[in-house]
Amino acid sequence: MLQYTDPAPAGAAGRRAFRIGDSTTGVLWGTDDAAGRPLVLLGHGGGQSTQAPGMRARAEALVHSGYAVAALDAPGHGGRPRTAELERRIERMRDAQGSPDFGAAVADLNAAVAQDAVPEWTLLLDDLEAEGVAGAAHAGYWGYSLGAAIGFPLVAAEGRIRAAVLGLIGETVAESAAAIRVPVQFVMQWDDPLVSRVSALRLFDLVGSRDKTLHANPGAHGEVPDHEEASSVAFFARHLPGAAA
Amino acid sequence: MLQYTDPAPAGAAGRRAFRIGDSTTGVLWGTDDAAGRPLVLLGHGGGQSTQAPGMRARAEALVHSGYAVAALDAPGHGGRPRTAELERRIERMRDAQGSPDFGAAVADLNAAVAQDAVPEWTLLLDDLEAEGVAGAAHAGYWGYSLGAAIGFPLVAAEGRIRAAVLGLIGETVAESAAAIRVPVQFVMQWDDPLVSRVSALRLFDLVGSRDKTLHANPGAHGEVPDHEEASSVAFFARHLPGAAA
Repeated sequence: MLQYTDPAPAGAAGRRAFRIGDSTTGVLWGTDDAAGRPLVLLGHGGGQSTQAPGMRARAEALVHSGYAVAALDAPGHGGRPRTAELERRIERMRDAQGSPDFGAAVADLNAAVAQDAVPEWTLLLDDLEAEGVAGAAHAGYWGYSLGAAIGFPLVAAEGRIRAAVLGLIGETVAESAAAIRVPVQFVMQWDDPLVSRVSALRLFDLVGSRDKTLHANPGAHGEVPDHEEASSVAFFARHLPGAAA
Repeated sequence: MLQYTDPAPAGAAGRRAFRIGDSTTGVLWGTDDAAGRPLVLLGHGGGQSTQAPGMRARAEALVHSGYAVAALDAPGHGGRPRTAELERRIERMRDAQGSPDFGAAVADLNAAVAQDAVPEWTLLLDDLEAEGVAGAAHAGYWGYSLGAAIGFPLVAAEGRIRAAVLGLIGETVAESAAAIRVPVQFVMQWDDPLVSRVSALRLFDLVGSRDKTLHANPGAHGEVPDHEEASSVAFFARHLPGAAA
C-alpha cells in the first residue's frame, strides 16, 4: 500500500510524497481531487529524481491543466539505495564519458535500472487504483531518456497506460516499441550525441501503434525545446478520458 | 492594387474574394478587423484552390484563433488560365501516375507552378500593406506539397514572412531551405509515396533556421492527421507578433 510520508499536501499543485514498500519513493500532485482527475505518470531522466526542478515544473503544468500526476524515483535515484552492480555500471558510464562509447554505456545503465523499475510502476498503479484514483485505470506516461527506457517496456506490458510521450532513446528498446499499440508521441533531438539520429528514427519506425507521431528538434540530449511541453499536454488532452481537450 | 470581387464579406469568418491584376485571384478571411489581426498566408495543394474545403476549414480555424488569413489561387488553379507548357507538365504527371516516376513528375509540375507563383505572393503582401493590414509586415505562411513548393522559395526570399509551417516535399527545394532563417515547422508523412522518407528528412536537415521542428506521422501524402492543424495554430501563436499565445 501507498503510504504518505508528507503529513499534508503542499503548494498550489497539492504535492505530497509517498513510499511504497520499504524503499520505493514517489510523489503525487493534484491531491486535492486526485480521484476525479485524469492521471499522467512522469518518469525522470538518469541522475535526476522526483525532486528535479524540471519534473516539478512539468507536474505543476499538468496539474494546472486538470491532471493528477504521479512520479517514482527510479532505483538508485533520489536517495534510493544503489546495489553494487548499479555502482559498477555507473562507474563504467563515467569512465566512458567523452568517448564514442558513452551513449552505449548510458543505454546499458538505463536498461539495468529500467528492469527493476518497471514492476514498481505496476505496483504504483495498483495502489493508486486502491486509493480510488480513477485515472489509474487509463493513465498517460511521459518520460525521456531513462524515463523512456522504463516507459517503453512499461507501456508495452501495462494495459492501464493508454497514451505515452517518450523520447531521447534509440533501438535498445526496439522489442518493447514493436509491442506498443497505444498512441505515442516520440521526441528526438536531431543532434543528440547519446542517441544516433538513425537509431532514434528506426525506433520511431518500429513503434507498433497506428497512432504515433514523431517530433524532432535541433540540439543535444538535454535541449528539448520548451514548446514540446505544451505539445505533450495537448497530446494527453487528445487521448486520456476525462481530460479537457 | 487588390480589388474585391465579392460585394461584401460573407459568413462568420468574414470571407471575401479579391483579384490582383488581370488574373491572380485570392481570398481574405477575418475582414472584420484585418488591419489589427496577425496574418497567416495559406498556400493550397496541387489541383486544389482557395475554394477547397480543407483550405476553408483551416482559414476559419485561424480566424477563430484571432488571425486574418490570405490565400491565392496558384497559376493554373481555381479557374486561373493554364499555359500550354503547364498543360504539358500536367499531362506528363498524369501519364506517370502509378509509376515510380510519379513523385518526380509532381515535383517538376509543382516547381514550375511555384516559379510563377512566388512573385504573386510578394505583390499580395505589398497590396495588403497598402490596405493597412499591419500583419503583412510580419506574416506567417502555411503550405503543404504545392503550397510548400511555393513556400520554401517565398519564405527564403520574402523578409516579411517570419514563421512558416511547410511540408510534404523533399529535396527539390533544398537550396531555398538552406537560405531560410525564420522558425519552421516541417511536416512529413512517414509513408508518403510521392516524397521519399530520406528526401524529406534530408530537407529538414538542410533548413537553415536555428528554430525548426520536424513532425512526422504515419500514412500517405494526403493523410496528415487532424492534430497537426491545432499544432500549426500553436506554432503561429508562439512566433507571430500580436498573436494570442
